[in-house]
Order: sequence, then C-alpha cells, then structure tokens
Amino acid sequence: MNPLDRLSALFEKFPGIGPRQAGRFVQHVVRASPSVRNEFISALQEIDTQVRQCPSCMRIHSGSRDLCNICDNARRDTSTLAVVAIDADILALERSGTYKGLYFVLGGTIALTSEKMNGLHMRQLFDSIPTRVEKGLREIILAFPANPEGDATAVRIKEELTPVVGENCRITTLGRGLSTGSELEYADVDTLRNALVNRK
Amino acid sequence: MNPLDRLSALFEKFPGIGPRQAGRFVQHVVRASPSVRNEFISALQEIDTQVRQCPSCMRIHSGSRDLCNICDNARRDTSTLAVVAIDADILALERSGTYKGLYFVLGGTIALTSEKMNGLHMRQLFDSIPTRVEKGLREIILAFPANPEGDATAVRIKEELTPVVGENCRITTLGRGLSTGSELEYADVDTLRNALVNRK
Amino acid sequence: MNPLDRLSALFEKFPGIGPRQAGRFVQHVVRASPSVRNEFISALQEIDTQVRQCPSCMRIHSGSRDLCNICDNARRDTSTLAVVAIDADILALERSGTYKGLYFVLGGTIALTSEKMNGLHMRQLFDSIPTRVEKGLREIILAFPANPEGDATAVRIKEELTPVVGENCRITTLGRGLSTGSELEYADVDTLRNALVNRK
Amino acid sequence: MNPLDRLSALFEKFPGIGPRQAGRFVQHVVRASPSVRNEFISALQEIDTQVRQCPSCMRIHSGSRDLCNICDNARRDTSTLAVVAIDADILALERSGTYKGLYFVLGGTIALTSEKMNGLHMRQLFDSIPTRVEKGLREIILAFPANPEGDATAVRIKEELTPVVGENCRITTLGRGLSTGSELEYADVDTLRNALVNRK
Repeated sequence: MNPLDRLSALFEKFPGIGPRQAGRFVQHVVRASPSVRNEFISALQEIDTQVRQCPSCMRIHSGSRDLCNICDNARRDTSTLAVVAIDADILALERSGTYKGLYFVLGGTIALTSEKMNGLHMRQLFDSIPTRVEKGLREIILAFPANPEGDATAVRIKEELTPVVGENCRITTLGRGLSTGSELEYADVDTLRNALVNRK
Repeated sequence: MNPLDRLSALFEKFPGIGPRQAGRFVQHVVRASPSVRNEFISALQEIDTQVRQCPSCMRIHSGSRDLCNICDNARRDTSTLAVVAIDADILALERSGTYKGLYFVLGGTIALTSEKMNGLHMRQLFDSIPTRVEKGLREIILAFPANPEGDATAVRIKEELTPVVGENCRITTLGRGLSTGSELEYADVDTLRNALVNRK
Repeated sequence: MNPLDRLSALFEKFPGIGPRQAGRFVQHVVRASPSVRNEFISALQEIDTQVRQCPSCMRIHSGSRDLCNICDNARRDTSTLAVVAIDADILALERSGTYKGLYFVLGGTIALTSEKMNGLHMRQLFDSIPTRVEKGLREIILAFPANPEGDATAVRIKEELTPVVGENCRITTLGRGLSTGSELEYADVDTLRNALVNRK
Repeated sequence: MNPLDRLSALFEKFPGIGPRQAGRFVQHVVRASPSVRNEFISALQEIDTQVRQCPSCMRIHSGSRDLCNICDNARRDTSTLAVVAIDADILALERSGTYKGLYFVLGGTIALTSEKMNGLHMRQLFDSIPTRVEKGLREIILAFPANPEGDATAVRIKEELTPVVGENCRITTLGRGLSTGSELEYADVDTLRNALVNRK
C-alpha cells in the first residue's frame, strides 16, 4: 500500500474517525511542511523512550521519574484512592478541584457481554491494597461511569476488596442524582429514583 | 385579521413553536374535517367548565371533585410533601414509581434577573404548612430543577419554612451527582463536585 | 375522556408533535386566560364560515371572494403555471421574488408505496389545462420536491398533459444541481450528476 | 515540551479537532503497540520520498511516475478540464461516475475578506491553458463550491481565461438548483431562484 493509503488506514482507527475525516487528516499532514512531519515523527519516536506507565497508578505519563507527578506528590492525601476507568477521568476529577487523594487507572470497565476483564489492571489494584491500607488508606472511591458497565465493575471490585480492606477503610461510589442543569421533566426514571433516594 | 392569521398568531405563542411550524399547524387544522375542529372547540369550551385547580396542591385537573386524584387519595403518604415547579414534574416523579407522598405545584421558579415571584403560589404553600405539620408532615422535599433558578427557589423556601416547621419536619432537596449514563470525562465540574461530595 | 386528555390527543395529531409536547401545549392552553381560549374558539369557528378553497388553484384562503388573491390578481402572468405539492410551497416560491405566474396546489405527491393519488387534485388540474392553454398558457412548471415522490408525480402529470397542451406550451421541472452553500465533497452522487449535466 | 503534549498540540491542528479529542488521539497512539507507531513513523517518512504533486493537475499522489493516475490515463477525455478547489473534490466528482475529463486542483478558493490568492495555483492554471487548447480542450468546468468564495473564484478565472481560450473552448460552471432530497419549503431563496431560472 502507498503511504497515503497507509496513513489513512491508521487515522481510520483513531476513536470517532471515519474514512472521510481520515482522508482530510492525510491531506492536512501531506500539505504540511516537512518540519511539521519531522516534529510528528520525533514525538512518536520519543513515546517509546520517554513515555512510561506509572507503576503505582498505571497512568501513562512522560515524567523523568517512574512515578507520575500525582503519585510522586507528597502533598496528595494518601488516605483516599479514586479508582477510575481511563486516564482522562483523572483530568476530569482534577478539574473539579475538590479531590486531593491518589488515583488508580483500571484501564476500562468490565464488558457486560463477555464479562471479560482483559487488559484491566485488576490484579495490580488488588495486590496494592494491603500495603496502601497499612500506610493509612481509609477510603476507596470507585469513580466509574454511571452506566451498567461501570456499575458491574464497581460491584466486582467491592466484592473482592471488602474482605481485604478491613473495618478502617470504606469503599464508596460517586453520588448519583440530578446532574447540574437537568430538569425533572427530562430526567430518566433511574436518575429521578436516585435523586429521591439520595435527597438530603 | 383573518382567522388563518389569528390561528397562526395563537400557535406561535405555544412553547417552542415558531412562525413556520405555526403555519403548518394552521394547515393541519384547516385541512382537518369539520368534526375534528368541533372536537377542538368543545374541548376548549369545557376547559372553563370542567377543569379546575386543586385547592390543596394547585395542580390543574379535570376530576369531578375539587381535590385532584392524588390529594384525594387516602393511600398517599401524608408525611412527605414534594414541592415542584410545574405540573409536568409531578408526572415525572410519579413515573419514577418510588414516591408515594403528596405534591405542591409552585407554578415555576424564582426568576434570577428580577427575583420576581409573580404567579408563584408561595403564599398558599406557606399558609398550608402549619396544618400539614399538625397532621403529621415529617419531610418537605424541594424537588426543583438542578439550575440556579431552582436552587434560589429552594433557598428562599427553606429560609421561610425552617422556623415554621419545627424539629419534627425536615426540609430536603433532591440528590445531586452523576445522572444515569453519564461519563466522568463529559460531566461538568459542578456535577463532579456533587458526585464526590455525595459519594457513599 | 376528560377535556385535558381530549385536547392532548388532538395536539398529538399535529405534524411533528409527540405526547410530551402535546402535554405542554395543553398546559399552555389551560394556564392561558379565558379570553385567549375564546379567541382560539372563535378562530376555529370562523374557519368553517370564512375560509375557503380557491376554485382555480385549490389553495386555502380567507379572502372575501371565491378566488384567492393570486388567482384574482390581474397583474399575474397567466402564461405560466407552477404546479406545487402543498400550500406552503407557494409561499416559498413567492419569497424567491422571481416568479410572477399562477399556481396550482396538487395537495401532495404520489405515494410511491401505494401509487395512490387519493386526495390529490389531479382531475381538477387536468380539466383546467385546455381552457388555460386557450387563454395563453405557454409553460407548466412542475415545481415538486426533489425526491422520488416528487419525481414520480412530475412524470405522471407530464405523461397525461403532453398530448393535451399541444406545441405551444412546454412542460418544465425545476433546475437541479448544487444548492446554495453546498460543497462538492459533501454533495450526494445524484446532486453532483445533476450539477455536471446542468452545467452552463 | 514532553512528547505527549507535543503530540497533542500536533493533533489539535488537525481540521475539526479540539483539545479534548486531541487528548483522546494521544491516548490511542500511546496505548497502541510499538509496531503501530512504527507503521505511523514509516508512513510519515515515506511522504517526503514517495508522495509528489502531479505537475499537470497539482494533485498530491503517490504514484511511481510524476503524473498522477488520472493525468497519466490515456483514456481520459482531454477535451474537458474540471478546475476544483481541493483534492477531495476530485474524489467527489469521480464518485458521481459521469465525468471522464481531466482535473486541475487550484488549492482552495479566493478569500473574500482579503481577496488573497496566496497558495492558489492560479499561475500554473493560466499558463497551462494555451497548450491544453491547442491539444483539443473544448470546455473548462469551474467546479467550485456553491458559496461566495467559490463564485468569486469562478468570476476571477473566467475574466482571465475568456480572452485566452478563444471561441472553440467554453467556460462553464456547475448547475445550480434543488439538490436531491430538498423540499421547496426549506430551500433558501437563492436556491429557489436558481431552480426557477434553470428549469428545463
């Protein structure tokens, strides 16, 4: 295959990109100056040498040390651990500005059709908990998306961890209810039920 | 003005209807059979004779008695009262299937620009509370939309009612957090904050 | 059925209106003042007395004379006749500001599934053509939507009228090609073919 | 800047891509296997060695010869030349299956604000026309988007080329009118005017 078609095929595998937009990306790259393409090539090459996975939270980062800048930050609150599905969820929770604890990136959620957990860092999570508890962990927040896959993943992890964490560490999930801006009339039945149950 | 333009002007005042759709409604009505138009006319005429406002919850209904079918239902739980903005919110909460208490329709929310409460049944609500408390009311749920107007309305009502209801009746608001189906990555900062604060 | 449910059922038959919006319309009408409802009722009543169908173009109008204001306008060019599907198409062509001829409203297009022509004023159209030709008609523009139903309707009418109109009156259809604002990349194959064939 | 941020900055310059989707692309690339990244790198490297611009039509291609596969195809009809704005328009016209002539890629349209023609291959187009006419060119189709920029570009080119091409070669533009699927009621005034003027 020629380089244009190969590039197009690679772009088509990008999340949310179809053949037409892939073609537009190819035109963009081809019409760019050689120095832009060289910048692209060098960034891709440096991924293999400079990007690593944090051994503590499994997040991808490009820091100079093994631990990512959150796990490596002595000011973070080690008594709480938020388990999230993907790296981007960390950014979302950081944006909220209220969470000061540590994270663990599971790498996804359980697929309901297959119940497969391939590629999820379940083992690494479970193995890390006893040490974390010893060091003062008091709460594990299962911060998964509010969908069946997220719920199933939370149930599975809670089952596994409850006997391990002991009485001094609780396992929580994110609050459910009306999201900001929503009106009762347009809210789904499940959200209204949660909003009623979780009233306060 | 001729009847076609008058009808169009009336339809243009319907919620969410612009001139083009109003014109389509006029064509629909004009091309309909005379019996459909008569049905329309008789339904409109009966509104003034057969539709009333429930004196207890302020809801519009067409029952044969003064009280609406919820206020008149002896099986409803009189220990909880959900104050909602509009009639449609009652249907929404009823669809959720979990709420068994009574309702009060405020008729809208406080407009933030003007802080006007014109047309809101604040007086009727406040006046009804002492009797309701005497009869066993234990919780007032301020079930307003999760927006600034809804929040301002809740704050205002809570200020007014707190000294009135006494210790045996609490005033609550609907739970806030992730609505069903939402992912952290796309949730707004305010919703994520609520989801973290209301974790359990 | 009570008047609220009857009104809701009537609104649900409006084009593009579902149960939820019908419910909102009912609330709008019920919460309106009695004088608004009376205005509604009188406009509906006057439809049967003051609205008529133009016997020449089949359009609905509320003029004081039998003919509508276009058919009755001595300045309109009687040498061209635009046959359209629905009343709203007349407004669209008038907005364009270039057409000065007469109209005929067919009342819809042929349904492709059933090939039914129920309710279409085919007979009235065909019957009117000989007199129109005698009075100087030189062009019949079949101004139907650019979809299979519109095309089938145009073919059917052309077959029927070609032997009738004689050599001095031509039968045309609206130009096809790129609509204003469209880009080649996003145009469908059929539109591009028309744009190429109709280049000039 | 670290490679993750550099990659993200490069993706943000892709057409239609914002920071959030750029971040998702970075995750996609980083989580991919090293062999996928190598494939990416080699495709980018080959652009500089294997991708060239056709000297006849200015199109980007990766053929082994200088001319692209259309200019190099002896079966294409050399009597028609379609001048298009961008490479993707060639694909669009080829999809239509009716055009068998040659192409010329201008590289964009005139910017109306600046009237700048920077980067447009105007000179190359104009210089090529005399030879093309000698070799039998009979029609130049200005196949630009149906927007003000496309129209201005067509006017400009026509002014320049009309004295050059002589009587035996005409300069045309794509047909304008209703695009397939459009209804009169929703068509803009300009499109309706074109549909009326170009009726046939």
